[in-house]
Amino acid sequence: MTDGREREAVTESSTSSPATTSSSSKTSPPADRREFLKGAGLGAVAGASYGKFGLAPITPAAADPIAPPKLSTEKWWPSKWGADDQAGASNHITPAKVIETAKWIKDGKIYKLGHDYEASMPLFGKRVFTLRIPGGPTGGPFGENRLVYHDEFVTTEIGQVGTQFDYLGHIGIAMGAPGDKAEMRFYNGHTVADFSDAYGLKKLGVEHCKPLFTRGHLVDMVPVKGRMMEAGEEISMADVRAALAKQNMSEGDIRPGDGIFFNTGWGTLWKKNNDKFNSGEPGIGLEVANWVIEKDLCLTGADTWAVEVVPNPDKTLAFAVHMTLQTKHGILNHENLFFDDLIADKKYQFVYSFTPVPIVGGTGSPGVPIGIT
Amino acid sequence: MTDGREREAVTESSTSSPATTSSSSKTSPPADRREFLKGAGLGAVAGASYGKFGLAPITPAAADPIAPPKLSTEKWWPSKWGADDQAGASNHITPAKVIETAKWIKDGKIYKLGHDYEASMPLFGKRVFTLRIPGGPTGGPFGENRLVYHDEFVTTEIGQVGTQFDYLGHIGIAMGAPGDKAEMRFYNGHTVADFSDAYGLKKLGVEHCKPLFTRGHLVDMVPVKGRMMEAGEEISMADVRAALAKQNMSEGDIRPGDGIFFNTGWGTLWKKNNDKFNSGEPGIGLEVANWVIEKDLCLTGADTWAVEVVPNPDKTLAFAVHMTLQTKHGILNHENLFFDDLIADKKYQFVYSFTPVPIVGGTGSPGVPIGIT
Amino acid sequence: MTDGREREAVTESSTSSPATTSSSSKTSPPADRREFLKGAGLGAVAGASYGKFGLAPITPAAADPIAPPKLSTEKWWPSKWGADDQAGASNHITPAKVIETAKWIKDGKIYKLGHDYEASMPLFGKRVFTLRIPGGPTGGPFGENRLVYHDEFVTTEIGQVGTQFDYLGHIGIAMGAPGDKAEMRFYNGHTVADFSDAYGLKKLGVEHCKPLFTRGHLVDMVPVKGRMMEAGEEISMADVRAALAKQNMSEGDIRPGDGIFFNTGWGTLWKKNNDKFNSGEPGIGLEVANWVIEKDLCLTGADTWAVEVVPNPDKTLAFAVHMTLQTKHGILNHENLFFDDLIADKKYQFVYSFTPVPIVGGTGSPGVPIGIT
Amino acid sequence: MTDGREREAVTESSTSSPATTSSSSKTSPPADRREFLKGAGLGAVAGASYGKFGLAPITPAAADPIAPPKLSTEKWWPSKWGADDQAGASNHITPAKVIETAKWIKDGKIYKLGHDYEASMPLFGKRVFTLRIPGGPTGGPFGENRLVYHDEFVTTEIGQVGTQFDYLGHIGIAMGAPGDKAEMRFYNGHTVADFSDAYGLKKLGVEHCKPLFTRGHLVDMVPVKGRMMEAGEEISMADVRAALAKQNMSEGDIRPGDGIFFNTGWGTLWKKNNDKFNSGEPGIGLEVANWVIEKDLCLTGADTWAVEVVPNPDKTLAFAVHMTLQTKHGILNHENLFFDDLIADKKYQFVYSFTPVPIVGGTGSPGVPIGIT
Repeated sequence: MTDGREREAVTESSTSSPATTSSSSKTSPPADRREFLKGAGLGAVAGASYGKFGLAPITPAAADPIAPPKLSTEKWWPSKWGADDQAGASNHITPAKVIETAKWIKDGKIYKLGHDYEASMPLFGKRVFTLRIPGGPTGGPFGENRLVYHDEFVTTEIGQVGTQFDYLGHIGIAMGAPGDKAEMRFYNGHTVADFSDAYGLKKLGVEHCKPLFTRGHLVDMVPVKGRMMEAGEEISMADVRAALAKQNMSEGDIRPGDGIFFNTGWGTLWKKNNDKFNSGEPGIGLEVANWVIEKDLCLTGADTWAVEVVPNPDKTLAFAVHMTLQTKHGILNHENLFFDDLIADKKYQFVYSFTPVPIVGGTGSPGVPIGIT
Repeated sequence: MTDGREREAVTESSTSSPATTSSSSKTSPPADRREFLKGAGLGAVAGASYGKFGLAPITPAAADPIAPPKLSTEKWWPSKWGADDQAGASNHITPAKVIETAKWIKDGKIYKLGHDYEASMPLFGKRVFTLRIPGGPTGGPFGENRLVYHDEFVTTEIGQVGTQFDYLGHIGIAMGAPGDKAEMRFYNGHTVADFSDAYGLKKLGVEHCKPLFTRGHLVDMVPVKGRMMEAGEEISMADVRAALAKQNMSEGDIRPGDGIFFNTGWGTLWKKNNDKFNSGEPGIGLEVANWVIEKDLCLTGADTWAVEVVPNPDKTLAFAVHMTLQTKHGILNHENLFFDDLIADKKYQFVYSFTPVPIVGGTGSPGVPIGIT
Repeated sequence: MTDGREREAVTESSTSSPATTSSSSKTSPPADRREFLKGAGLGAVAGASYGKFGLAPITPAAADPIAPPKLSTEKWWPSKWGADDQAGASNHITPAKVIETAKWIKDGKIYKLGHDYEASMPLFGKRVFTLRIPGGPTGGPFGENRLVYHDEFVTTEIGQVGTQFDYLGHIGIAMGAPGDKAEMRFYNGHTVADFSDAYGLKKLGVEHCKPLFTRGHLVDMVPVKGRMMEAGEEISMADVRAALAKQNMSEGDIRPGDGIFFNTGWGTLWKKNNDKFNSGEPGIGLEVANWVIEKDLCLTGADTWAVEVVPNPDKTLAFAVHMTLQTKHGILNHENLFFDDLIADKKYQFVYSFTPVPIVGGTGSPGVPIGIT
Repeated sequence: MTDGREREAVTESSTSSPATTSSSSKTSPPADRREFLKGAGLGAVAGASYGKFGLAPITPAAADPIAPPKLSTEKWWPSKWGADDQAGASNHITPAKVIETAKWIKDGKIYKLGHDYEASMPLFGKRVFTLRIPGGPTGGPFGENRLVYHDEFVTTEIGQVGTQFDYLGHIGIAMGAPGDKAEMRFYNGHTVADFSDAYGLKKLGVEHCKPLFTRGHLVDMVPVKGRMMEAGEEISMADVRAALAKQNMSEGDIRPGDGIFFNTGWGTLWKKNNDKFNSGEPGIGLEVANWVIEKDLCLTGADTWAVEVVPNPDKTLAFAVHMTLQTKHGILNHENLFFDDLIADKKYQFVYSFTPVPIVGGTGSPGVPIGIT
């Protein structure tokens, strides 16, 4: 009925942190911090309207918040691409890779692998997409040739709506005490204190991504399961292998720098049942994520809004795959893709080509990738 | 000093139309209309702040405004692509064209042919580009893994700022009486009354564009002229031929559906002298435009904000090339491109690949094309 | 489920106008225009998502569209306040009126007569309200005193969301042929061709309104009806008189320049049942509107989104009271007010004080008026 | 030339914080933090484009950043209005105060004490003000009465542009370690960790402000100085007394809950020399601020963008008056006011009436106050 932009839920979810009333205390006592994190966890549970990252039912932390966060007890930076790197796995796209990839252009057929952008698409949490045409037309007539023209005026969380490409400033981990920006770390160890700015990220912005042109492999789970997968249902390695077999593809043919894509059927809910679409999703978990890392791939993608399973079968985890692949390994992610045309043509291997809109300091990019066969 | 978004100039430029005070008059007398158009012409002169289309010093019309507009005395629609077509020259991109194009991938090198998006780029008229990071970070921590994330919130004339791709709902011609939306016509004869809407164009939106993957030919004027070209300086066919010769390219090798691109040197002003950059530009005129039509090309592009010469040597004309190529022939246009890296490598022929962000009802698209060699 | 910002309904509602395919015809034949208006009428019926003005079920015009529109067969301008006036009924607020009004300050009690602004309020059609806090905090720390600060970044149809004050550039009448901007007339005869601009209205903007400080009279219909009034239920003069009697007020005490306000109970749906709230409303019709004109009042107001009855009992009319009071008489209108506190204290007469936010070229203003007793 | 929204300066100003490369350190060593603050201080110096709070040339902190910030060595909360209070000095506006105030309405004359809102007004740092009219008109025609309408679509830092009213979530103090949100404290001790949220402040939002209706006293410095005051020139108590004497006003007549306003002449630069206007300003310092606290006033105001002197004569301080009055005492502040009409009529005492637009979670409000005499 309403559009999920309710303020109430947020308020509820975020005010439970106790106000420490001691004045000059530079380090709050551990007890307070434990309380705070508990609040944060509860917030996540209540926060259905708090962006997509609040959708998973996450159990509040019972552990000492001063301890390192789960899955991150060890330092994960600097990145394998170098301590100064801001390009992550887009570094895979070398001339040799481009030439290898171009060999897959045989039919000359181009597939649009994403959705159109419009206000009626499923939008997570409080994100919006608004478009207005200023004037009707916007300007003119000018000259004796009487030219007129239209512009369009758009307001939106531009890199995080619709078909969206996550870049390296999007996901991080709070390694330190609650509220400590100097220990909220992103790819290559960069911290919120270091690069987050009201007017754009000062590091890890999507303008640093190299154009992607690589071999894409599609894993279609629908024939394997005989149905659309459901929210919370994890794609296992056994599933991946079953799909590859069904598609007559060899795991060995998936090479470093390639992209791996998953079709779950969840995308059929797009604009048909946005509420269900947003409520969770099937997807990969840490098992497949670790295989992606071993395989040294460039990116993942799916017909879902997060690629990974939501909620995670381990209810204490929130978006563990995002954190593992993007934050720790710089592996990129393309969400809300559309594979129906490829599948109709039984084309499971294709050239994936996508260049993010280089918005300085942006967290991601809009735009549909193409698949060329 | 101020940012060019002054309201005054606009007011000045647009209030000269006489208010016909007769109540039920459906057709204003010709004298009034003549006045109106004069107003519109003066508006264009004064309208340095009225969007890029007011930048050319245009002489007010002396002719009878009831007569058809200059250059448009004949009906130009339906389009060669069919009366219902909304894809224009993107229809050139067939499988055969893709296969022909892919043959040009030899080095495996990818060039970014556009600029990054940021508030400091030259923005025409009153257009804006604003980016804010909501929160710092936007959300989290969530889960025992304590995930945090950033979004970005952008407000802008998204298809008409920075490196920009003009689509078919952008440019039209006022064929009828002043203010008559039913005779303001765009590609394929569509009218403002017909498809312009406050919430997005109902036809000719950029979502109808097919992904572009074609052969690109770059014409570099700087070596020909021995300098950056200047505002108001037109690229002639003789210039084009001189450049092709200098680059050891054959005019005959430019085939239907290809893209033609012009480097004028004007792009060196980008972010270095935005005021001069916006004040006019060198570019092609009707001579080259007609050659583009004869050659049956897919698109034009340049390192300038309009590709065509501004002001036009014929001072009565405003953006005559836009109108001729886009409105009448559905030939597309990519502005504010960046060719320096191609030129440094002496690569004048390349695969041009670009897929517009499919914003429903949008007039254009952001995003940088790539050149692959 | 979705948020009513669907593009589909709009498309449906607006594409029925036939594209006249004759090329140079400057005046379409009457038959085509008749078709067009029929389309416009149907659009209104389908346009539940097309802004609040599409909510009323309006019967398409069967009459000749070349004829003047219903209720507007005669010229209504210039206004009684002079042909150049842009202040309308705010001209009532003279020093004498202010002194007369100030006498009503007896208790020293101030009532807020409007709602807070937030994304969860009922928003009509495709209008939005979005607020983001850039950064967290937005800036700092600065200086050895380590100052930090927050800003807020808002995108919205600012004068037409929540508690809203309609000004004179908001409502007009299409007096001429379909699509003819030169005959779409607003207060004092100003036309869309004359003052509508993509970057702000060039006349009749809300900055021209004088600060309002006048005597307010509240008519509470709930005790008269013994219940909340329903959508489509018109407040008659008999109702007004019954309410005044019940409240021990005299019709004669309502003086020129005063404000008249209506409580229908419909406001109790605010944020509780936004869908019903937006689906229509009770309110005044032309009978009371004509009394408002005779009484020479400054403004009307109500606890509803349009003050007037929607749908109008005459199904061929769309927002006839808006058009009659605002467009023809310059009488102002304040929507989505909140009277519960006044009513709880049985205060039906009060000082109404409101100064619109002077947004140059704006159609209305946000802000809550106060009632002082 | 450009509009001050350059990204470069920001980058420069904010990247000097050293990336602590130690992996799992939950508490960075003091040495690092000292470095960080030094960076922050330098950032402020460079940050001419970083919002108004970066305009003052501030010397980087040499002191130990672990020590309390200058001027804030003692705990200042809870507020005198109670530990739960969110209304601050607007609590002064009681019925008794309203009645006392209303006695000053004698002439019945209303003065608008602020500026119109438009893109050409001086905007600090990267703040923007954009207005678009969607469509032309936005909607219609509807019904046989053929109604049409306009909306306006605005994007802006709405409470912090133009004539602006600062509320209690705007200014705070970083009491703890750099980047520690749990010790960035605002009015009543609320912390960034506690109430700052990407979608609106969860406490101290401007919706908590009570409508202001109080006695205003204007201090005109121009006749005292015989000229416009200059940037960095502080208004002393001696100045205030000289002005009061010149205006035949008694200091004793300034009562608790009243408002005090300063005219410096700086406002004459508005839209005439925006660059100079933004470069600094004359205003009150801590001496007058302390008098305002002693006098127990409701608010301050001026014809400048900060009311207080910028840069502060003590170059280590950034906006010390904001911090002292607003953050510590909940005394409100109205910026960019306009007093010329009052001064022309020699009216130095008036009813100040203003009700903020109650934007939930907003940091301030647009809108012009009125002065009634």
